[in-house]
Amino acid sequence: MQIGFIGLGAMGAAIAMNLVEDGHKVHVFNRSLARTEPLRKAGATVAESPAQAAYLADVVFTMVADDAALTSVTFGEMGILAGLKPGALHISLSTIGVATAQDFTVLHREAGLGFVSAPVFGRPDAAAARKLFIMAAGTDEHLSVAVPLLQQMGQSVGIVGADPSQANLVKLIGNFMLSVIIETLGEACAVAAKAGIDPMGFVELLTSSNFNAPPYKIYGPMIASQRFQPAGFALPLGQKDNRLMLAAAEALGVPLPLASLVHDRFLAVRSQGIGAEHDWSAFALCALTEAGLRKQV
Amino acid sequence: MQIGFIGLGAMGAAIAMNLVEDGHKVHVFNRSLARTEPLRKAGATVAESPAQAAYLADVVFTMVADDAALTSVTFGEMGILAGLKPGALHISLSTIGVATAQDFTVLHREAGLGFVSAPVFGRPDAAAARKLFIMAAGTDEHLSVAVPLLQQMGQSVGIVGADPSQANLVKLIGNFMLSVIIETLGEACAVAAKAGIDPMGFVELLTSSNFNAPPYKIYGPMIASQRFQPAGFALPLGQKDNRLMLAAAEALGVPLPLASLVHDRFLAVRSQGIGAEHDWSAFALCALTEAGLRKQV
Amino acid sequence: MQIGFIGLGAMGAAIAMNLVEDGHKVHVFNRSLARTEPLRKAGATVAESPAQAAYLADVVFTMVADDAALTSVTFGEMGILAGLKPGALHISLSTIGVATAQDFTVLHREAGLGFVSAPVFGRPDAAAARKLFIMAAGTDEHLSVAVPLLQQMGQSVGIVGADPSQANLVKLIGNFMLSVIIETLGEACAVAAKAGIDPMGFVELLTSSNFNAPPYKIYGPMIASQRFQPAGFALPLGQKDNRLMLAAAEALGVPLPLASLVHDRFLAVRSQGIGAEHDWSAFALCALTEAGLRKQV
Amino acid sequence: MQIGFIGLGAMGAAIAMNLVEDGHKVHVFNRSLARTEPLRKAGATVAESPAQAAYLADVVFTMVADDAALTSVTFGEMGILAGLKPGALHISLSTIGVATAQDFTVLHREAGLGFVSAPVFGRPDAAAARKLFIMAAGTDEHLSVAVPLLQQMGQSVGIVGADPSQANLVKLIGNFMLSVIIETLGEACAVAAKAGIDPMGFVELLTSSNFNAPPYKIYGPMIASQRFQPAGFALPLGQKDNRLMLAAAEALGVPLPLASLVHDRFLAVRSQGIGAEHDWSAFALCALTEAGLRKQV
Repeated sequence: MQIGFIGLGAMGAAIAMNLVEDGHKVHVFNRSLARTEPLRKAGATVAESPAQAAYLADVVFTMVADDAALTSVTFGEMGILAGLKPGALHISLSTIGVATAQDFTVLHREAGLGFVSAPVFGRPDAAAARKLFIMAAGTDEHLSVAVPLLQQMGQSVGIVGADPSQANLVKLIGNFMLSVIIETLGEACAVAAKAGIDPMGFVELLTSSNFNAPPYKIYGPMIASQRFQPAGFALPLGQKDNRLMLAAAEALGVPLPLASLVHDRFLAVRSQGIGAEHDWSAFALCALTEAGLRKQV
Repeated sequence: MQIGFIGLGAMGAAIAMNLVEDGHKVHVFNRSLARTEPLRKAGATVAESPAQAAYLADVVFTMVADDAALTSVTFGEMGILAGLKPGALHISLSTIGVATAQDFTVLHREAGLGFVSAPVFGRPDAAAARKLFIMAAGTDEHLSVAVPLLQQMGQSVGIVGADPSQANLVKLIGNFMLSVIIETLGEACAVAAKAGIDPMGFVELLTSSNFNAPPYKIYGPMIASQRFQPAGFALPLGQKDNRLMLAAAEALGVPLPLASLVHDRFLAVRSQGIGAEHDWSAFALCALTEAGLRKQV
Repeated sequence: MQIGFIGLGAMGAAIAMNLVEDGHKVHVFNRSLARTEPLRKAGATVAESPAQAAYLADVVFTMVADDAALTSVTFGEMGILAGLKPGALHISLSTIGVATAQDFTVLHREAGLGFVSAPVFGRPDAAAARKLFIMAAGTDEHLSVAVPLLQQMGQSVGIVGADPSQANLVKLIGNFMLSVIIETLGEACAVAAKAGIDPMGFVELLTSSNFNAPPYKIYGPMIASQRFQPAGFALPLGQKDNRLMLAAAEALGVPLPLASLVHDRFLAVRSQGIGAEHDWSAFALCALTEAGLRKQV
Repeated sequence: MQIGFIGLGAMGAAIAMNLVEDGHKVHVFNRSLARTEPLRKAGATVAESPAQAAYLADVVFTMVADDAALTSVTFGEMGILAGLKPGALHISLSTIGVATAQDFTVLHREAGLGFVSAPVFGRPDAAAARKLFIMAAGTDEHLSVAVPLLQQMGQSVGIVGADPSQANLVKLIGNFMLSVIIETLGEACAVAAKAGIDPMGFVELLTSSNFNAPPYKIYGPMIASQRFQPAGFALPLGQKDNRLMLAAAEALGVPLPLASLVHDRFLAVRSQGIGAEHDWSAFALCALTEAGLRKQV
């Protein structure tokens, strides 16, 4: 299949490489040319604009940083819509806001194009190993094209609904749930530490019992040791997703006290010098600081 | 081994039965005699007081409802201490407060007796199937007696520390972490439902991906369907443990905003007619009610 | 002085009338013509556009509903900037966001015009009686023109700083502080009522002692009696100001847990059928509902 | 009238002195004898025990630190009840818990004695100047004796109800409302300061407008300047009252999210080295710290 792929960050590059390996004709575009080189060597074509990457494609994937970037590569000058042929499909893998996804759905339909949202759970190593969890939403017609491709990229593809923005919402909820686990571990480690229980051993005990899901195992040791570098998922990105979650919930009329708490934690930790070079789980420092346990950094 | 066992609720009865099956001489006591019958048939001796159950024992287990009950069966008239021989060991399986456990440790030591706290994670079916997760704390000398017995009761025994109350604290933290999962699921289901995503399908998607730990799988469907009966763990017991967690954290000087939120949730849901006949996860109704989604009950 | 006045809602009409009474030549504009009639009778000129109202003016006041309305009457077609002469001054009385005020400051400066923010505290009857509290900010040059006019409108004019947006921030903080009083009264009345203390008598006791500031006296009886109509300040407007406060605080990097709580209260009460016809203090119903005290409406 | 007076802290000494000045026969008791000296010089009798101070009295006042102290001077060896004649009246001025007041009511009735709760709002200088606000509750019979005496002590006496504990509840609610003002001012000053507005000037602006009640004027400058010494009301006492408020609300089934937030603030600020030598308004440091604004102390 002819496939366009826009956005070769750590996640996008890993996924695009898998598509090349699967034998698809992949046309990649990335703002910085350097990141296209490994894909060119593996057999992908390097395009000079999103429009060019989309020109021959039946399906274009996008994996970019945020709503603004997605809007720019899609509707901007020499964007995807300037190149995509009628009836082709745009599959957005990015974590974006619900309102943006709703706008995209309408604008693609009006342009005679398909749109599927398929945000992913997992880090770059999971992307490379095809271990992502993917949530997809779109019309049956568009999903019939998208799902077989997505199944090659991850260990499971969940179908959320017919409205693409629903998949974006579920992704935001997922990140919201992760953020609550981070806060929980911060508070739990603070109590344990002040009772003289070694936090690392404590986390080991918990994740060997009922709390054996991956997020507890990933974030527990980071929080217990207060080591938040290198950043698996940078703090400002987590903060952005919290903002998108609160905006989506507000539009739906749902109060989320847990998300409000996390919102305040992000602001507090950033005012204390934690930023883009730290993993988002660093906001657990708030709970530790309040208990008088913050290590010198 | 000669073993006393005090408290034959659903959990205690299942554990005591396993001890009988393992070939120990078990002397049981329960306030209501009816519950002793199956154990008597299986070969246990039925005592008329905690003291009598403890009289011949090398080790006495207790599994009772709360701090007051444990204090009564231990230090009350014809309590365990009135019967236990010097050097014997009391293993407390109950979920009790940290301060109570600290008092018990001192009082047993002064009486020349051993004391180990070994609270358990799991429901009665897990107890019967020897699948409990057990957290134990006590001196090495006492743990050397207790751990082999505990290992017969569950799938893992984590050693928390030398101070028995530390195991009680870890148990309370565990229940605190479960309560946060309940609140999280309430808020998440509220958002999903208002976006037109079927909550049951939504929970299925989440627990098939990153959130695959048992608590998400147990509480997710209850909350998505707003069905909180029968009660696996009754709401007032969960509220009691929240209170014990807040008291322990206060004594340690640790603010727990998540536990404070859950505290307020319990009060709110009880003021709206939810009580002892409901599972503790019913406090997730608060998030659903605030979103205008509460079903008629 | 030649004065333009844009926006004749209840507040604007009362203020404009006072300017007419003070002997100024006032040129008014309002979207709906009907509201201009009393001012025309009193001697004001009725303009057909903001530009026309601004044409002869040394100073133009604006008192409109929100950021979008202010942007429209200022920069829109036939807006203020299309009419105002070089060196003239725009005094914005509206409650708007901090970022909007910052944009306005720059755009007026670039257009060779002055800009002062002077949001007001008080309800329409206070405006008519020249009892408003006014917070003003702008350069000394612009304040030297604005302050004498503002002093005619209210009982005090506080100078916040040289940056107009600072006055808007102080206004938002003021409304934030009012919102916390509303929540406080909701929780306090809930406790009193459940202890068998009549809430109206309770509010009377409090506002006769330490809590004798106007907001307690205004909102206390409304909340104690659960009567939120007619709306002195409509709930959606209060919700909007809460949103503007949170946005301003986020831009400054300040977590505001109290504003986050109020944010969640607004969402909850709106999901339960409370809306534009209710006073914003109606979100105190959340605390009363959680205590099982909500009256049937 | 023959009056006993137990507890000569700063508040009690000032009130007792006024009673002496009013011409009553006052029998004082204080644990530390030194503090009785000024009263002895003014004409009071110094008793060697609460019982002795109560022996001749028609009315005994108590003004002590907490529930435990009140229980001890009342029911302890040589306590008030050991001395008081049948039909005499005990008026408790202390801020105590609701459950304690309920117990006291029953125990006095059973002993054939009267009991009135009359907690006071105000600091020692207000007590000396007879400017206290007093909340009283008790049966009509007992209030008919108490109120004329209380009216000599303050500027107003509010009658809360027939159950003495209701006055204690209103006092706790009053302190709860003060604590929310403290938190509000902390958050408000944090926003203002980060926007370049001088916090002292900002507080001056606010308290000159709508927020002109005494608590804003007292706590505003302390918080704006981050000066919390000397302590007008020591932090641990404020924390104790927060605890009593939460306990009373829990018993009544009322969630108080604002009190829960303040509870967490107290714990956080104490873990950071703030304690008995600081005014309770020092917990506003939490909001300032989270915004990165904490001054070095």
